[in-house]
Amino acid sequence: MRPGDGRAIGEVGENALVARFRELASAAQGEGVIVGSGDDAAVVAAAEGRALLLTCDMMVEGVHFRRDWARPRQIGWKAMAQNLSDIAAMGGEPAFAVASIAAPGSLPEEVAEGIAQGLMAAASEYGAAVVGGDLVGSPGPVVVDVALTGWVQREMMLLRSGARPGDAICVTGSLGASAAGLTALQRGLGAEMLPRLDRALIAHREPRPRLAESRAIAATRLGTAMMDLSDGMTEDLPRLCAESGVGARVYAEHIPVDPSCEEVAGRADLDALTLAASGGEDYELLFTCALDAVAEVAAAVAAQSDAAVTAIGEISEGDEVVFVDPEGRKMAFPRGFDHFATPARCSQRAEADSG
Amino acid sequence: MRPGDGRAIGEVGENALVARFRELASAAQGEGVIVGSGDDAAVVAAAEGRALLLTCDMMVEGVHFRRDWARPRQIGWKAMAQNLSDIAAMGGEPAFAVASIAAPGSLPEEVAEGIAQGLMAAASEYGAAVVGGDLVGSPGPVVVDVALTGWVQREMMLLRSGARPGDAICVTGSLGASAAGLTALQRGLGAEMLPRLDRALIAHREPRPRLAESRAIAATRLGTAMMDLSDGMTEDLPRLCAESGVGARVYAEHIPVDPSCEEVAGRADLDALTLAASGGEDYELLFTCALDAVAEVAAAVAAQSDAAVTAIGEISEGDEVVFVDPEGRKMAFPRGFDHFATPARCSQRAEADSG
Repeated sequence: MRPGDGRAIGEVGENALVARFRELASAAQGEGVIVGSGDDAAVVAAAEGRALLLTCDMMVEGVHFRRDWARPRQIGWKAMAQNLSDIAAMGGEPAFAVASIAAPGSLPEEVAEGIAQGLMAAASEYGAAVVGGDLVGSPGPVVVDVALTGWVQREMMLLRSGARPGDAICVTGSLGASAAGLTALQRGLGAEMLPRLDRALIAHREPRPRLAESRAIAATRLGTAMMDLSDGMTEDLPRLCAESGVGARVYAEHIPVDPSCEEVAGRADLDALTLAASGGEDYELLFTCALDAVAEVAAAVAAQSDAAVTAIGEISEGDEVVFVDPEGRKMAFPRGFDHFATPARCSQRAEADSG
Repeated sequence: MRPGDGRAIGEVGENALVARFRELASAAQGEGVIVGSGDDAAVVAAAEGRALLLTCDMMVEGVHFRRDWARPRQIGWKAMAQNLSDIAAMGGEPAFAVASIAAPGSLPEEVAEGIAQGLMAAASEYGAAVVGGDLVGSPGPVVVDVALTGWVQREMMLLRSGARPGDAICVTGSLGASAAGLTALQRGLGAEMLPRLDRALIAHREPRPRLAESRAIAATRLGTAMMDLSDGMTEDLPRLCAESGVGARVYAEHIPVDPSCEEVAGRADLDALTLAASGGEDYELLFTCALDAVAEVAAAVAAQSDAAVTAIGEISEGDEVVFVDPEGRKMAFPRGFDHFATPARCSQRAEADSG
């Protein structure tokens, strides 16, 4: 970003804009910052052995949610869940949140109440507390912004930057259910009552951050890098690789495609694997560990959760991230979308900087 | 707030809405929360002797700022300064911030750059660091939301709830400069080049949070309650009194009216005292201490700052907050405005809940 030549941010592009903001922020960073912008949450010095995590995520009506596609409580839940997922992605424990809401005076009271209840419910479910916020009037769309703190034992912290060539790439749970839910809403598939539609819609509207799974992975001390899948594997894995200075090779047939994604993709005439690999908002954990540690990590997660751990590929030298089919041929998947360049397609979310 | 009868939030009113949100939040609050919603920042348990502060403030274009009234850098500065002031209001030290920005893709790049630079500059000036954020596309007005953490020594923490009958009510600096700056912008007084107009405009656009003064007050251990003046004395003092369960008597002639406020009020045919007492965004500190401690606290502040400390009244029994003239007659000043019920009047800001 070279300001001054009069370009609009849509022309500059999200990645360039975020890179510029990170540059500005890192120039101004004082002591105590362990990890600044660029990971799932910032890490700052706190007490002996423990570091403070800090993250935020903003949701805009018409871009990230629609009131005819989700109940107010679900909108609030999701706004908090995204942040909880960022804390999970660091191997941390969520602690305290503040939430800001901008809304026009015409907003029905029960919508405000529902959003607030959803925020509190998600926080409470995962051991966090909402300790404050800001309510402001706005002529524009409803905006919900949450900032969440967490704590992490320094030696259990899992950054995006720790992946090493030869490591296995693993994911928790399955992918594509949230993208399937969004697809169903976009295509109006609700009326057909597909058997697994509810599963897809719930995944899209009320994602469940993987905190127990994160805790289990972190406790093994065997993970080398971790992040949460918010923008889709095809967008997020390259980010993890870039931070680690490595490449990746993913065996596409190993990607655990959610059954609801198979079903909705079939009905919508889409490729299920593409939807699972490039759709966002799964809030599953993507992590790396030594190949011979996969079984132990998977067993640790299995002891805490019914979410499976699946090894889908391996970290490589270089910087190329490739998805290959069973014959070893490279596959092309669409990458995520640029937040400012692309017209809003509610509510496929792409966060610019999750730190 | 009794959701379900279909009212819009503008009808419910800001105070009722905030009260309801606080009720929801306090029901869900777990261990570790020392002070939740309702003070200038939330206070949560951290390490031995130190507590973590957490606050957030959201600004909306057309409501809290206008791009033809302030440069982008000033918009970013003010968004951060408001939060820094909330940390000052607790007797704390600012630490780490995250900032979220929602903007349309058509936003000029230099505006985004300027806002980011202003955020970083204000943080850096007062020893804080911006460690992350979120950038999202939006069809609506530019929204800037900052969440800031801080640290406070538990025994130096100054809450709104500590004022006792008989305490003196004091303010730092002078009041009304920011309201004068806003008035000048609203009335287009810029062209007249009033001698003190710059002072008023800078106060409005680039407020300077009173961190050194807060530190000095807190270090005396003589303060009993404190908050920052963001919505105007007539709005904020009743909040402090409500939290402390006391009343107040303010001698209006003791209110330190800024000279720029006198000047602009004269030109705009407004009452300077009214502007100073009810105008917002001064970000001065309002605090209480025993009557016989005022001189010592003022001296401590004087050693760190050229901001004067002025005693303007005293805390009383009961719950009545009155402003009296030199003859002891009660004066009526306008109260602040309701964020959702009142049409936006950029950029007189009223925060709903500063915790």
